Amino acid sequence: MVGGGRGAFIGGVHRMAAALDSEIELVCGAFSSDPEKSRLSGEDLCVDPKRVYGSFKEMILKEKKLPENKRMDFVSIVTPNHMHYAPARMALENGFHVVCDKPLCFNMKEALHLQKLVEETGLLFALTHNYTGYPMVKQARAMVKNGDIGQIRKVVVEYPQGWLTTKVEDTGSKQAGWRTDPSKSGIAGAMGDIGTHAENLAEYISGLKIKELCADISTFVPGRLLDDDGNVLLRFDNGAKGILHASQISAGEENNLNIRIYGTKAGLQWFQMEPNSLIVKWLDKPMEILRTGVGKLYPEATAHTRIPGGHPEGYLEAFANIYRNVAICIRARLGGTEAPAVYHDFPTVSDGVRGMKFIEKVIASGKSKAKWVEV
Amino acid sequence: MVGGGRGAFIGGVHRMAAALDSEIELVCGAFSSDPEKSRLSGEDLCVDPKRVYGSFKEMILKEKKLPENKRMDFVSIVTPNHMHYAPARMALENGFHVVCDKPLCFNMKEALHLQKLVEETGLLFALTHNYTGYPMVKQARAMVKNGDIGQIRKVVVEYPQGWLTTKVEDTGSKQAGWRTDPSKSGIAGAMGDIGTHAENLAEYISGLKIKELCADISTFVPGRLLDDDGNVLLRFDNGAKGILHASQISAGEENNLNIRIYGTKAGLQWFQMEPNSLIVKWLDKPMEILRTGVGKLYPEATAHTRIPGGHPEGYLEAFANIYRNVAICIRARLGGTEAPAVYHDFPTVSDGVRGMKFIEKVIASGKSKAKWVEV
Amino acid sequence: MVGGGRGAFIGGVHRMAAALDSEIELVCGAFSSDPEKSRLSGEDLCVDPKRVYGSFKEMILKEKKLPENKRMDFVSIVTPNHMHYAPARMALENGFHVVCDKPLCFNMKEALHLQKLVEETGLLFALTHNYTGYPMVKQARAMVKNGDIGQIRKVVVEYPQGWLTTKVEDTGSKQAGWRTDPSKSGIAGAMGDIGTHAENLAEYISGLKIKELCADISTFVPGRLLDDDGNVLLRFDNGAKGILHASQISAGEENNLNIRIYGTKAGLQWFQMEPNSLIVKWLDKPMEILRTGVGKLYPEATAHTRIPGGHPEGYLEAFANIYRNVAICIRARLGGTEAPAVYHDFPTVSDGVRGMKFIEKVIASGKSKAKWVEV
Amino acid sequence: MVGGGRGAFIGGVHRMAAALDSEIELVCGAFSSDPEKSRLSGEDLCVDPKRVYGSFKEMILKEKKLPENKRMDFVSIVTPNHMHYAPARMALENGFHVVCDKPLCFNMKEALHLQKLVEETGLLFALTHNYTGYPMVKQARAMVKNGDIGQIRKVVVEYPQGWLTTKVEDTGSKQAGWRTDPSKSGIAGAMGDIGTHAENLAEYISGLKIKELCADISTFVPGRLLDDDGNVLLRFDNGAKGILHASQISAGEENNLNIRIYGTKAGLQWFQMEPNSLIVKWLDKPMEILRTGVGKLYPEATAHTRIPGGHPEGYLEAFANIYRNVAICIRARLGGTEAPAVYHDFPTVSDGVRGMKFIEKVIASGKSKAKWVEV
Repeated sequence: MVGGGRGAFIGGVHRMAAALDSEIELVCGAFSSDPEKSRLSGEDLCVDPKRVYGSFKEMILKEKKLPENKRMDFVSIVTPNHMHYAPARMALENGFHVVCDKPLCFNMKEALHLQKLVEETGLLFALTHNYTGYPMVKQARAMVKNGDIGQIRKVVVEYPQGWLTTKVEDTGSKQAGWRTDPSKSGIAGAMGDIGTHAENLAEYISGLKIKELCADISTFVPGRLLDDDGNVLLRFDNGAKGILHASQISAGEENNLNIRIYGTKAGLQWFQMEPNSLIVKWLDKPMEILRTGVGKLYPEATAHTRIPGGHPEGYLEAFANIYRNVAICIRARLGGTEAPAVYHDFPTVSDGVRGMKFIEKVIASGKSKAKWVEV
Repeated sequence: MVGGGRGAFIGGVHRMAAALDSEIELVCGAFSSDPEKSRLSGEDLCVDPKRVYGSFKEMILKEKKLPENKRMDFVSIVTPNHMHYAPARMALENGFHVVCDKPLCFNMKEALHLQKLVEETGLLFALTHNYTGYPMVKQARAMVKNGDIGQIRKVVVEYPQGWLTTKVEDTGSKQAGWRTDPSKSGIAGAMGDIGTHAENLAEYISGLKIKELCADISTFVPGRLLDDDGNVLLRFDNGAKGILHASQISAGEENNLNIRIYGTKAGLQWFQMEPNSLIVKWLDKPMEILRTGVGKLYPEATAHTRIPGGHPEGYLEAFANIYRNVAICIRARLGGTEAPAVYHDFPTVSDGVRGMKFIEKVIASGKSKAKWVEV
Repeated sequence: MVGGGRGAFIGGVHRMAAALDSEIELVCGAFSSDPEKSRLSGEDLCVDPKRVYGSFKEMILKEKKLPENKRMDFVSIVTPNHMHYAPARMALENGFHVVCDKPLCFNMKEALHLQKLVEETGLLFALTHNYTGYPMVKQARAMVKNGDIGQIRKVVVEYPQGWLTTKVEDTGSKQAGWRTDPSKSGIAGAMGDIGTHAENLAEYISGLKIKELCADISTFVPGRLLDDDGNVLLRFDNGAKGILHASQISAGEENNLNIRIYGTKAGLQWFQMEPNSLIVKWLDKPMEILRTGVGKLYPEATAHTRIPGGHPEGYLEAFANIYRNVAICIRARLGGTEAPAVYHDFPTVSDGVRGMKFIEKVIASGKSKAKWVEV
Repeated sequence: MVGGGRGAFIGGVHRMAAALDSEIELVCGAFSSDPEKSRLSGEDLCVDPKRVYGSFKEMILKEKKLPENKRMDFVSIVTPNHMHYAPARMALENGFHVVCDKPLCFNMKEALHLQKLVEETGLLFALTHNYTGYPMVKQARAMVKNGDIGQIRKVVVEYPQGWLTTKVEDTGSKQAGWRTDPSKSGIAGAMGDIGTHAENLAEYISGLKIKELCADISTFVPGRLLDDDGNVLLRFDNGAKGILHASQISAGEENNLNIRIYGTKAGLQWFQMEPNSLIVKWLDKPMEILRTGVGKLYPEATAHTRIPGGHPEGYLEAFANIYRNVAICIRARLGGTEAPAVYHDFPTVSDGVRGMKFIEKVIASGKSKAKWVEV
């Protein structure tokens, strides 16, 4: 693991997600750019002190020298955006599979280079757009793919949060600090942090690509350096229209990612905060609520469900589905085969490139007087 | 009443709304442009046959000749859009107050003329943007006005319906027929029929005015003559940003008008299909659900509530609030006074002009390559 | 109308319900046992002063003397429980149909006498168990009757309110006063006031009869004279089991009547505070939500719906369904025929007798050491 | 681990719950009473084959012989009810802490003996009444304890499931098989399997004890050997009244455990299927919805929350809270201290004895003609 030391948020999430299914063991780490902090964090986590490293470079080089069956099987990168590229690149160049937090990296150039490296090496690269790990998101995608809702006409995807309604970055919050700092986060604030989740979710479920967009990007909190709100009109490659909005100043909102997709036969609705329900509004029969683990669902949903219906599965289980799938794919590779297709269902470097392009274009559109910007 | 004969929809709604509080009696009507149909409809409605007229012109002229205390007190216009202007104008010109269905009329020219007539005559003119009649909408408006949610930064207003997902206008549906016919509906379909409700609701609660908009207007159903979907970015006069979308091809949606308003202190959420709840998401304390008739609400809400909390009030009660307020205002005028301010709370010709301008600009923006169109 | 003068609650509800469909006109009344108050109330209501009476006796006698086409068509009784019997009896004995608020009367003896009178006279007698007037309640009943949910095994009906959590009757509340006064309310408080609604709803939807019950009846508020909470085990005539609980000390509850019925094929759930949804939990397919006015419902539901789906209908509309049906039945009789069966769907004196028996038995069980009391 | 081999359900849940926080490692097991199946299951789980045992006896004896820092730290028992007592007893007698699935054991005699052993040995004994592990359940308990809702008057606890609506035990379902088999499950079916969860939840949150109960216990599915539904009136030691019902024939219900507690100041409502919300219905201010991880909650809630508000935590996280607390307590003991009180918050052998008594009394009441049975 690279990053995720004391005081970090997403590192702990990655560790719980990786541990849940007992498929993955945390064997080494460079938990902080500060070697002493890395050491202490390793201690907290009961990692063998010999494998707690002072930098990701040291980690990758030393692990590589270990015998194949003793070294780490993949690298997990959980640092802020500006520190994704270097460790990811080095891991790939040294033959390690990678799991990387989103967004992929700092800018398009880095993104395209990582994509190239993945293509060249054939290594696995998972990007933790974790919301696609929910069983009912997979059910929605399968329903669309199987034509259950007809041809898609409209997509509405929202990601309102309220935690940056005030200038939290001035209060010492580590999370708020780097996310609103252009030198760490990149050109986008909210649009990069959560807008990309919304974009990824919309394209994942719909199977469509955003072709053009028209954005109104705002910074509401005085003195903030990056956007904290964005409203975007979308046009998809099949002619469907859409709306995407993401915000971190929607006072009182927790983490209210949600999506509605309307086809010619039905509308689908999914809310991340009630993730075990998928609402299907049929044109010609009563509204249905499909539920995780209940009744006959598509295999894509069932394969990502752990417990019977009515026992709620949450964010960590969805996140863990990425890690479990990666673990299964790596194990298959170690055994000289490929895992079944259902386990190759996790976001990859391509989703990451797509996300970086979205960031680039949405920020450009925000500044543009032209109505439409091509993606 | 003008219009609302056999086979009409909104006429019946107006009659129930007017009857609910026993303040208003249906005394005469020109229920159809077909005199025989008007006669039969009058019979259905137990209106004195002598006061069932073959045309609105006849009605207005003959009623005017009746002694003051025998003639109708106001005219209710419930015809399709293209037949609002003429009876409204004639009623005003002959000294009758008017209640008119929305949108106000067919185009801006008519709208401005009606506004001028209202100003000149001093008569009451109510426009049935009935959704502002709900008690919790009034509570929301009062909360905004009293600064409870701080300064408004973002408004999201939605009006998805699904009933025009297929080409219903070809199946003989009277409702679908005129709404998709430019000669009756005007330049807009969904944006006029329901988009104006969304626009009106957003401005009513927020107290803000839309300053600029950027619209993507679509007709999804092949062969349809007017728009059936629109996605719009909004900019308000105080600097707030917003999204408005209205659709009649959102498969499976009933009549899902809803609004979210985010201020610096809290977010408000109201859903027309659960109209007795107002969700308040505070920045710094637990989310609250305010309920019609429960606890201490603003007088504006209480004055429009009929029964104790937990006994759901619906669409007709909200609609009836307009009629009741108009009746109280007229009665006060008949008595030579003005009703208290709380009863003057109904949409007027100015809201109608505003709505017509919205229609004009949103359709223009849909055709424009420029990003922003001023309203 | 008998009762419903200034300061009353349910009288106004009856008037709005009666007015909504323009089928019924308030022509006369004895609005209070105090003649002066009756007179003033009549003035408020714009009733012809000659037909505002000082007592129900005077009203019935004088109206009877009017020519048939000038006299009132039926009597509406909206007084507290102890004043139902006398006017109801006198109305029936003088040939007037009756609409009476619930519970039917003060005790079983009165109830049986009224039942006998109705049988003898053949007059219409409607009891305003208004919750059965909701379209989705009628849909639920029709689904049960048509075998859609299989054989019923379990019924859970709840009616929690919180408004009597403190000793409100000591604060001058007229509503709380008579409801907690044994000389006006009868032997039961909460169980009579709202327990009977729960009992009526359960038997109406299920089509079953309660055969035995076992009750734990409580008075929680010190000094209160009647029960304010009751928990009851039920056994139905088909072998189904059930639970009924009603409470007026469930702090924070508004008017949360709800019912769940489980059969061998599906479970039905309806909540009065969201009356336009009927949740159907199927054993072998996804949960459905049926909605007032949406899609294909049973004719019993459709016949009691006024407006299209998504336009919420509420408590007054449900209440009005009783009045409208009664009006249609009376008009048919006046024309020498009987109205179609779908309009004879309103609670009658038999439901009232059933409710009085429930009150008698549930209070007896509360005092009994034996487990089961036969109904 | 004892039990939890191939084909089992709850064993996997225990393993995920134990793994989530990387505090616990599965080091040995007797996964089945069939040694070969145990061996294969151990293989599946990557447990060192030398520590995969053919029986719990072998496991306990051999592990005890290992050096202290090599042997297992505690035993986890995940077998059907009739196989809890023997391994639990032997573990305690040999100095091992125990985590045991619920209900505690097969009958009261076993229960009391286990309780005695725990008292004598001072070992830790956790019972996985996992629903008390949810943060908002802990919040509810703390609110009650701190007097926030006043004095409790009424408790309604429900646990409807529908999965045994048909005779599933005849279809080869292992889960249904032992649960409906008196030789494995004990004297109770649904009341033992899920009724005890309801009982435990009610006493845990309320801090009250059930003093008397009156039960109607049913077996609806023909040929089934144990109860599949039960309705129970409750009386608590402080004078509060209550209702408990549990069912496995409530068609269409998933796992709908829920509780409502009404005090003199407010009502609390929690639904297991939406576990991150705690609804507080105040007597004198608007209803609030408290949310996991959002705002200022009691430390008992916060200490059992892993991720920020809006990222749903589910069943496995609640279950894991028991394991994590046990791990922290054991580690403290290994270090010669006691963990802080907040981590001693898990169900113990006393809860288990209480549950066994509930089973005994509720079944006795079901057969009794007397109204009340003392607990």
